[in-house]
Amino acid sequence: MKLAELTWQEVDALDRNVVVVIPTGSLEQHGPHLPLFTDSILATAVSEAVERAMPEQVLLLPTLWLGASAHHLKFAGSLSASFSTYVGAVKDAIESLIPHRFSKFFIVNGHGGNSEPNGIALRELKATYPNLKFGHSNYYTFADETAADVLSGPAKSIQHACEAEASLIMHVRPELVRTNKLRDDGLVPDPPIRGMVHSFDEITEEGSKGYATLATPDKGKVIFDSAVAGLVQNLTTLFHGYVFKSE
Amino acid sequence: MKLAELTWQEVDALDRNVVVVIPTGSLEQHGPHLPLFTDSILATAVSEAVERAMPEQVLLLPTLWLGASAHHLKFAGSLSASFSTYVGAVKDAIESLIPHRFSKFFIVNGHGGNSEPNGIALRELKATYPNLKFGHSNYYTFADETAADVLSGPAKSIQHACEAEASLIMHVRPELVRTNKLRDDGLVPDPPIRGMVHSFDEITEEGSKGYATLATPDKGKVIFDSAVAGLVQNLTTLFHGYVFKSE
Amino acid sequence: MKLAELTWQEVDALDRNVVVVIPTGSLEQHGPHLPLFTDSILATAVSEAVERAMPEQVLLLPTLWLGASAHHLKFAGSLSASFSTYVGAVKDAIESLIPHRFSKFFIVNGHGGNSEPNGIALRELKATYPNLKFGHSNYYTFADETAADVLSGPAKSIQHACEAEASLIMHVRPELVRTNKLRDDGLVPDPPIRGMVHSFDEITEEGSKGYATLATPDKGKVIFDSAVAGLVQNLTTLFHGYVFKSE
Amino acid sequence: MKLAELTWQEVDALDRNVVVVIPTGSLEQHGPHLPLFTDSILATAVSEAVERAMPEQVLLLPTLWLGASAHHLKFAGSLSASFSTYVGAVKDAIESLIPHRFSKFFIVNGHGGNSEPNGIALRELKATYPNLKFGHSNYYTFADETAADVLSGPAKSIQHACEAEASLIMHVRPELVRTNKLRDDGLVPDPPIRGMVHSFDEITEEGSKGYATLATPDKGKVIFDSAVAGLVQNLTTLFHGYVFKSE
Amino acid sequence: MKLAELTWQEVDALDRNVVVVIPTGSLEQHGPHLPLFTDSILATAVSEAVERAMPEQVLLLPTLWLGASAHHLKFAGSLSASFSTYVGAVKDAIESLIPHRFSKFFIVNGHGGNSEPNGIALRELKATYPNLKFGHSNYYTFADETAADVLSGPAKSIQHACEAEASLIMHVRPELVRTNKLRDDGLVPDPPIRGMVHSFDEITEEGSKGYATLATPDKGKVIFDSAVAGLVQNLTTLFHGYVFKSE
Amino acid sequence: MKLAELTWQEVDALDRNVVVVIPTGSLEQHGPHLPLFTDSILATAVSEAVERAMPEQVLLLPTLWLGASAHHLKFAGSLSASFSTYVGAVKDAIESLIPHRFSKFFIVNGHGGNSEPNGIALRELKATYPNLKFGHSNYYTFADETAADVLSGPAKSIQHACEAEASLIMHVRPELVRTNKLRDDGLVPDPPIRGMVHSFDEITEEGSKGYATLATPDKGKVIFDSAVAGLVQNLTTLFHGYVFKSE
Repeated sequence: MKLAELTWQEVDALDRNVVVVIPTGSLEQHGPHLPLFTDSILATAVSEAVERAMPEQVLLLPTLWLGASAHHLKFAGSLSASFSTYVGAVKDAIESLIPHRFSKFFIVNGHGGNSEPNGIALRELKATYPNLKFGHSNYYTFADETAADVLSGPAKSIQHACEAEASLIMHVRPELVRTNKLRDDGLVPDPPIRGMVHSFDEITEEGSKGYATLATPDKGKVIFDSAVAGLVQNLTTLFHGYVFKSE
Repeated sequence: MKLAELTWQEVDALDRNVVVVIPTGSLEQHGPHLPLFTDSILATAVSEAVERAMPEQVLLLPTLWLGASAHHLKFAGSLSASFSTYVGAVKDAIESLIPHRFSKFFIVNGHGGNSEPNGIALRELKATYPNLKFGHSNYYTFADETAADVLSGPAKSIQHACEAEASLIMHVRPELVRTNKLRDDGLVPDPPIRGMVHSFDEITEEGSKGYATLATPDKGKVIFDSAVAGLVQNLTTLFHGYVFKSE
Repeated sequence: MKLAELTWQEVDALDRNVVVVIPTGSLEQHGPHLPLFTDSILATAVSEAVERAMPEQVLLLPTLWLGASAHHLKFAGSLSASFSTYVGAVKDAIESLIPHRFSKFFIVNGHGGNSEPNGIALRELKATYPNLKFGHSNYYTFADETAADVLSGPAKSIQHACEAEASLIMHVRPELVRTNKLRDDGLVPDPPIRGMVHSFDEITEEGSKGYATLATPDKGKVIFDSAVAGLVQNLTTLFHGYVFKSE
Repeated sequence: MKLAELTWQEVDALDRNVVVVIPTGSLEQHGPHLPLFTDSILATAVSEAVERAMPEQVLLLPTLWLGASAHHLKFAGSLSASFSTYVGAVKDAIESLIPHRFSKFFIVNGHGGNSEPNGIALRELKATYPNLKFGHSNYYTFADETAADVLSGPAKSIQHACEAEASLIMHVRPELVRTNKLRDDGLVPDPPIRGMVHSFDEITEEGSKGYATLATPDKGKVIFDSAVAGLVQNLTTLFHGYVFKSE
Repeated sequence: MKLAELTWQEVDALDRNVVVVIPTGSLEQHGPHLPLFTDSILATAVSEAVERAMPEQVLLLPTLWLGASAHHLKFAGSLSASFSTYVGAVKDAIESLIPHRFSKFFIVNGHGGNSEPNGIALRELKATYPNLKFGHSNYYTFADETAADVLSGPAKSIQHACEAEASLIMHVRPELVRTNKLRDDGLVPDPPIRGMVHSFDEITEEGSKGYATLATPDKGKVIFDSAVAGLVQNLTTLFHGYVFKSE
Repeated sequence: MKLAELTWQEVDALDRNVVVVIPTGSLEQHGPHLPLFTDSILATAVSEAVERAMPEQVLLLPTLWLGASAHHLKFAGSLSASFSTYVGAVKDAIESLIPHRFSKFFIVNGHGGNSEPNGIALRELKATYPNLKFGHSNYYTFADETAADVLSGPAKSIQHACEAEASLIMHVRPELVRTNKLRDDGLVPDPPIRGMVHSFDEITEEGSKGYATLATPDKGKVIFDSAVAGLVQNLTTLFHGYVFKSE
């Protein structure tokens, strides 16, 4: 079910085992070829497909689209929430539902930069509500192996405005891809170094990482379906519940 | 233009006189007959109509839909940002664009509870950036007179899930109105008293205020068009600029 | 009763139906003719007159005089609390009394810029203490109709260092009016525009709005008495209690 | 000069060597015999006497009366600002004046519990504005030796609602002393221990410390005049300026 | 060099290419067999070894030992900083050095729970100081492959109070290992689920994860030396500088 | 007992009358002759000596070494926590232990600049946990009289990198004293003035105050032993408990 479209009486009648799904995205530069809303479009599309697959078991929120994107702000049009605003939004949304006895929450994230503050928001909530269930994951984590198979370029993981993301947008919103501007991009430190926090104006020429020129809608469909299938399985487990056993 | 659909290079090429439009809404109970997303749907629809009317002069952001709705939280499904989260989101979005020399910002608000924090966010920004232009208004302010004419019930202003809002949703998203559940609602203090801060579980029986049973799509269209026309005029002035003269 | 002058044992003996009255003002420029403390002087004077009229039913706090006045800071001598400081002061004062079972609170405000943060402070308190009573109003709201009658100039509402405020200070603290410096002032956008957040150095020449040259102590007395009478009636209702009934 | 009574143009014309004086007090229990506003009354009275003695060299603010009094909250009627609110108010007031080139600030404090947050507020300001002058002191620090001479009871320093404070209120606002309720009070740890943070409901029976039964208005006058004289000397030095030399 | 042992004049004389190393740890339960300070002991020992290897190129801070450990608080003795305190400490320490023109900062982390707030702290700093260099990594990231080789148990990565951590403490502070209490522990969700935020009282029986019974000091030495060697190489690159080139 | 070296099960078995000791220090300039870590070294050494003297009655935390040192930041290498970070660290550490029923907390402070925020942290905790015991003191408060006897120079109290602190470091970590750089330093306002907040670059030439050239290890030992003895007595009282009686 989509929370946005329900009335409060319909929400009040729901099974409290339902998994509250919170998509998180961004509005940030995605190179010369993809729209600023790429991450939000994809987190939303995946989450909506999950909701269609298991409507009685999922309560889908609208997408929290204002992401933690400070590392993209040098590129015009990128918007970024501060970490405290971002964490506050996630927590406020979830804590509004807890007094009504919703108890299972899962963030479907579309922007790498949100992973750390998503983790922090949920860890703070877990400390306050130790008996409730909180989870988060980038949607593409559930498509990792499939993506590695289907991608043609040397980069086998999902990067930024890359072969994978461009393929996904071609699948979901093809009219938004500037096909004449697709380009491969990405800079690396020389000599190599680990652990550095770089901004995207340092590690790209025009904002993207990876091999967008290799993108196709078919690849997008494969990755998309794989992410949805993985999430459906994961959230079905969360809906039905699980126990802990010795490893 | 819709910021979400642009690339960063397209944003970077824009005229800096463009008015950045930020719709703000809510996800909160709207009685037994309207969906939780009512305010966000309407702020978005009005803003998108404004953008269609003057695409070269407006840069439209996605809707900040997580409103300041603590007074509705007793009704299941309502979500509320804390004031600091809400103010932070408005400020963060706007401040992301200022280094890129955008200078005119206008919030089109769909939820009365956002008015105070919208004011505070913009007053803080104005103190920091005294030479930039910041404005905000509920969209229905621009339709006030028209609405008073067109509404049949005794309440001549826009309330909450009322004749006006129900009419507007009938116009914009008719499939979301639970027509069999339309009801009139609203309680008042006895004896009368001014200035009190009440929550909606105190001042309604099932969450709405006003005469939703009188709603029609035609009334909705009239109010909607009036709000759009007023906003277009106002933002056109903002785009072209104005001076101060003696009263 | 005036809280400042009581001992703790006297407070502890009070009827808990008493209305705690919190005057809020400012210390900010009021043109060349009125003192910086104008709003605080007036909120205090009105509140003290209310307390004299119903001493057993009101517990009057000293005036929170440090207002939210960022829009006046370009004028020397104006002081402004940040919104978080301002909201904190209102909430801290009120929350100090709640564990002692005081339960009815009303802010008598003298500065328009405080209205938004007063609203936010009380809405946050209401969310935390849903069974308590919180209200706020500008004192001149209770004199609106009377003021419209008595004012000679074209501005029929209360503005800033205007005919009304100058008249009120002439009534309450005449020695503080620089009668040789009274002036009419105020600028308006051309072409007209709605909803903009302007600072007072933009919309005035020397800090005031309205027709102070028309001020008289008699007008001040009429407005003052009207505000006091309205507040006394309102707080009497709050003291005795009220219920909710269908509209 | 009293800032509250000036216009902005008069402030703008001031010598910037003027010392901005900020009185800080409290509204907190002072035993069965003194009013809740004792600390604010005394800080205000001392500061006003200082201002009368050197009106051209002092710019006196109204008293920040909402003190840091959490340790008194168990006694009805006591109000306390949180530390962040308190520090915010001090800093906001001072920082409003800095852009207008005022540069010398001195807090005249009447409540021991404010000393720590006053120190923190000024240390934060000093870090931001290293070339400006900031100082703070309890007013009675300037009367310490005189008070030790004039007090009859075994407690030779100023405590809380004690011989000294009761004498001072008898001098300044005699009608506010409940002379029939004057009492000696105060508990001490047994065995003795240093450094503990106790609340006043632990270390008193009815809220006061010391020998209020020995208070007289004459003692109050001596202490008061001594504090004023010391402050006048100190602020005169601050007005004229000082250098640093080897010890 | 160790910052703690230098004088300010010696610091002032340093080459500003020096890498400021900030070890971060925790004080949290590590099962029945390892001390609460395990993570801090190891981050400190590794960092000190790095400093000994390249003393002229590293400026080593004392360990920020109060980690983000809310997920361990159910076990007595665990201490946890809130995220805002933790992030504040990292940022405050670094920002104290920036005005003195230090420009390269690297956090050597010993506690998984610090990774997210370390990332956030550095991303906030990077946004403010885009031209400076900030990096962070768990020390054991540099020993990952070596550890996988040397560990005998089924868990090939470093967990919590596991074969690897127990071996490391046996190498560095053998007297602190309760060898008679070494145990294997760790629970997993059944059915499996990804992305959940669990606390350690949910996923262990007595606080540890992995196969501590297999720990030996020799394994500890191998892992330790590998981590140090990797960090030395990485920080040498940071000291000498690097450029960006096409991938 | 040292918390760092215990396991959680050992902590869980402790007597809850144990006094939790939290040493607080700084890393800040101490003139040309003492190391930056002076305050932390001394607070730690004193606290460890106290723990050795009464191991069953004290639970010693590692030193919170990042102090509130903004007034030293002009000297290279000094680190300072903001007040909110500092207060947060003290409170977070203590509040981690309260759910496990530890109830007696005492801060042993080595840096004057921490006194105010230590007071604020404990006053906030006391307001939240009125039945628990919280105390704080500079360690040298317990040696005041002894130090006055043993010091040869004109300054009879402990200052900063002075005769006393230099003697203490000579006693505890003699290898860290730059004996060839010992110097006397310290500037005073002329004419004298009280209550000003000065930074150390204003009131010293090279960072120290007092007569370090007179320091000897023997003086250090006498002061050190006196501080330890006083603290042991004080904390023994806290361990066994105390009552309140009439003064």
